[in-house]
Amino acid sequence: MSFSRVAVIGLGLLGGSVGLAIAESLPDCATTGYDADPDVRRRAAERGLVGTVCATAAEAVAGADLIVFCVPVGAMAAAAVEIADALPADAIVSDVGSSKAAVGEALRGALPGATVIPAHPVAGTERSGPDAGFAHLFRHRWCILTPPADADPEAVAKLSEFWRALGANVEIMDAAHHDLVLAVTSHIPHLIAYTIVGTASDLEEVTRGEVIKYSAGGFRDFTRIAASDPVMWRDVFLTNRDAVLEMLGRFTEDLTALQRAIRRGDGEALFDLFARTREIRRSIVEQGQDDARPDFGRSDH
Amino acid sequence: MSFSRVAVIGLGLLGGSVGLAIAESLPDCATTGYDADPDVRRRAAERGLVGTVCATAAEAVAGADLIVFCVPVGAMAAAAVEIADALPADAIVSDVGSSKAAVGEALRGALPGATVIPAHPVAGTERSGPDAGFAHLFRHRWCILTPPADADPEAVAKLSEFWRALGANVEIMDAAHHDLVLAVTSHIPHLIAYTIVGTASDLEEVTRGEVIKYSAGGFRDFTRIAASDPVMWRDVFLTNRDAVLEMLGRFTEDLTALQRAIRRGDGEALFDLFARTREIRRSIVEQGQDDARPDFGRSDH
Ligand SMILES: NC(=O)c1ccc[n+]([C@@H]2O[C@H](COP(=O)([O-])OP(=O)(O)OC[C@H]3O[C@@H](n4cnc5c(N)ncnc54)[C@H](OP(=O)(O)O)[C@@H]3O)[C@@H](O)[C@H]2O)c1
Ligand SMILES: NC(=O)c1ccc[n+]([C@@H]2O[C@H](COP(=O)([O-])OP(=O)(O)OC[C@H]3O[C@@H](n4cnc5c(N)ncnc54)[C@H](OP(=O)(O)O)[C@@H]3O)[C@@H](O)[C@H]2O)c1
Repeated sequence: MSFSRVAVIGLGLLGGSVGLAIAESLPDCATTGYDADPDVRRRAAERGLVGTVCATAAEAVAGADLIVFCVPVGAMAAAAVEIADALPADAIVSDVGSSKAAVGEALRGALPGATVIPAHPVAGTERSGPDAGFAHLFRHRWCILTPPADADPEAVAKLSEFWRALGANVEIMDAAHHDLVLAVTSHIPHLIAYTIVGTASDLEEVTRGEVIKYSAGGFRDFTRIAASDPVMWRDVFLTNRDAVLEMLGRFTEDLTALQRAIRRGDGEALFDLFARTREIRRSIVEQGQDDARPDFGRSDH
Repeated sequence: MSFSRVAVIGLGLLGGSVGLAIAESLPDCATTGYDADPDVRRRAAERGLVGTVCATAAEAVAGADLIVFCVPVGAMAAAAVEIADALPADAIVSDVGSSKAAVGEALRGALPGATVIPAHPVAGTERSGPDAGFAHLFRHRWCILTPPADADPEAVAKLSEFWRALGANVEIMDAAHHDLVLAVTSHIPHLIAYTIVGTASDLEEVTRGEVIKYSAGGFRDFTRIAASDPVMWRDVFLTNRDAVLEMLGRFTEDLTALQRAIRRGDGEALFDLFARTREIRRSIVEQGQDDARPDFGRSDH
């Protein structure tokens, strides 16, 4: 019961990886693709990200039984409107967007009557564009499906099978809960990283040259995350505002407590927190969610 | 004019790496070592971290022309007191501690009259203990020397040459400025990472299991840093309080501005910051201060 023709809209990191992963893991499944940017379409064709790169979105979805939107979350509605008239009646519409409640609404609003099953593979890198994708991006990662309450169970099962074929583990979740969980595990970490990199760039007492030279003390880790695509991340924060603000509130509360401990010279409070946080790292490595080698296996020494 | 006998006090990640790096790069230099923990001494001898592991610190420094303290910054004074009577008259005393003004004072206080040239190699991993060290830790990294204003230029030159032989670039800096620079490039990143990992561990709406499963969205990066040694980091914050609080103030100001932008839906402000922070990553990679591969070259896909 697998898909026979998948249309990928948006051929950057995620779209390219979906196309390449299908070619490797589901070789009987045809793929078409479209991107708003002609340069991206040209490069996608050169790299063979999908079987056929089309000149319009409508052309790409003709005959498809799955459409996967891989555009920034703020562009989902506009991208969906473009295919509304061409959408095959029995096709499943899905996406890979990083926030889910807003995207679900956008897709359902633009495509009334369509079978919409939003999804989010929790996998990525700091790169974007048509050169960034690779077939193994989704391996050992989790893909979260957020079907509406009245979704067709068969469509959900079919989409789950698709993501498993691409190497992912699949979890089903309510869209609002997804947005809260990802606010913690992805959105706040990105927000904090962007902030500290911005703060460090603007100091008068410490030059940018110094920040760069001595970045191996920990800062460089944050710069990787803060090199992620600005459009994508702007859209994430605009579409997951409430959960992000809620979690940001918790974070700043905890940071204030730590600040107070430092001011007071309360070594015990500092030690207690610092000793507690090792455990979660161990579980992440044990569960295959990170490279176990020191320093992520960086080879820069 | 290189050293002929180096004593390493504290045989964990840093001490072990200093010993191994000397063996590789300065094979004519003898090394001795001591650690307060007998288990660490035993393991250090097994791994050959230094030529001779001694039963007391006084024994280790006998005949040495360089002593390098590689203990947590809060333990520097006590470790120095232990060797006060055994210190050869013309030996240079140095260290690798992550904060410098407090350590310089502690060493000078414990060893009046000694030639004290504090140092900080900006290099490390999240591991600690006698199994963590490796010979190449300092390659391509910067080592900051913070000699007092009246330091003997020859001693400074000799110590600089030593660190260059171990693969590091050397910079000379005022201790107070070091503490400010490292607050930004190392201490605040660690503080933030410890905080967000703590926040995520304590939520009621989001389980620890969920945090672990979906950590590849960015969170896992912070857990690596937050798995660093709690004693070491407690001591860093207790000894570099003023600079850390100063930089933390800047960070929270910037975070508050971003929070306001999210609340107001100000996409332009978000985009502007997110577009600005890519540049610094590029410079870090260009200057050899990080692995250029996406995701640091993690091989977990
Ligand atoms: N990057 C990650 O780590 C990651 C992880 C999980 C999920 N996601 C989600 O995946 C989606 C795509 O992200 P990405 O990293 O793949 O971004 P990307 O590499 O920038 O690719 C997105 C592509 O979509 C194109 N596009 C924009 N509007 C379009 C439209 N209306 N029709 C067709 N194409 C359009 C863009 O072209 P232009 O550049 O010309 O606009 C761009 O080529 C986002 O929703 C993001 O939240 C990302
Ligand atoms: N880790 C990094 O990334 C990094 C980077 C640059 C600089 N540094 C600095 O390097 C120093 C050492 O850090 P590390 O990461 O190597 O820590 P580590 O792996 O925990 O090693 C420190 C060792 O010193 C021992 N020790 C404590 N007090 C002592 C004393 N009075 N006499 C002799 N040995 C004593 C400890 O034994 P016990 O465990 O029994 O106390 C431990 O074996 C710290 O000052 C730190 O700030 C660390």
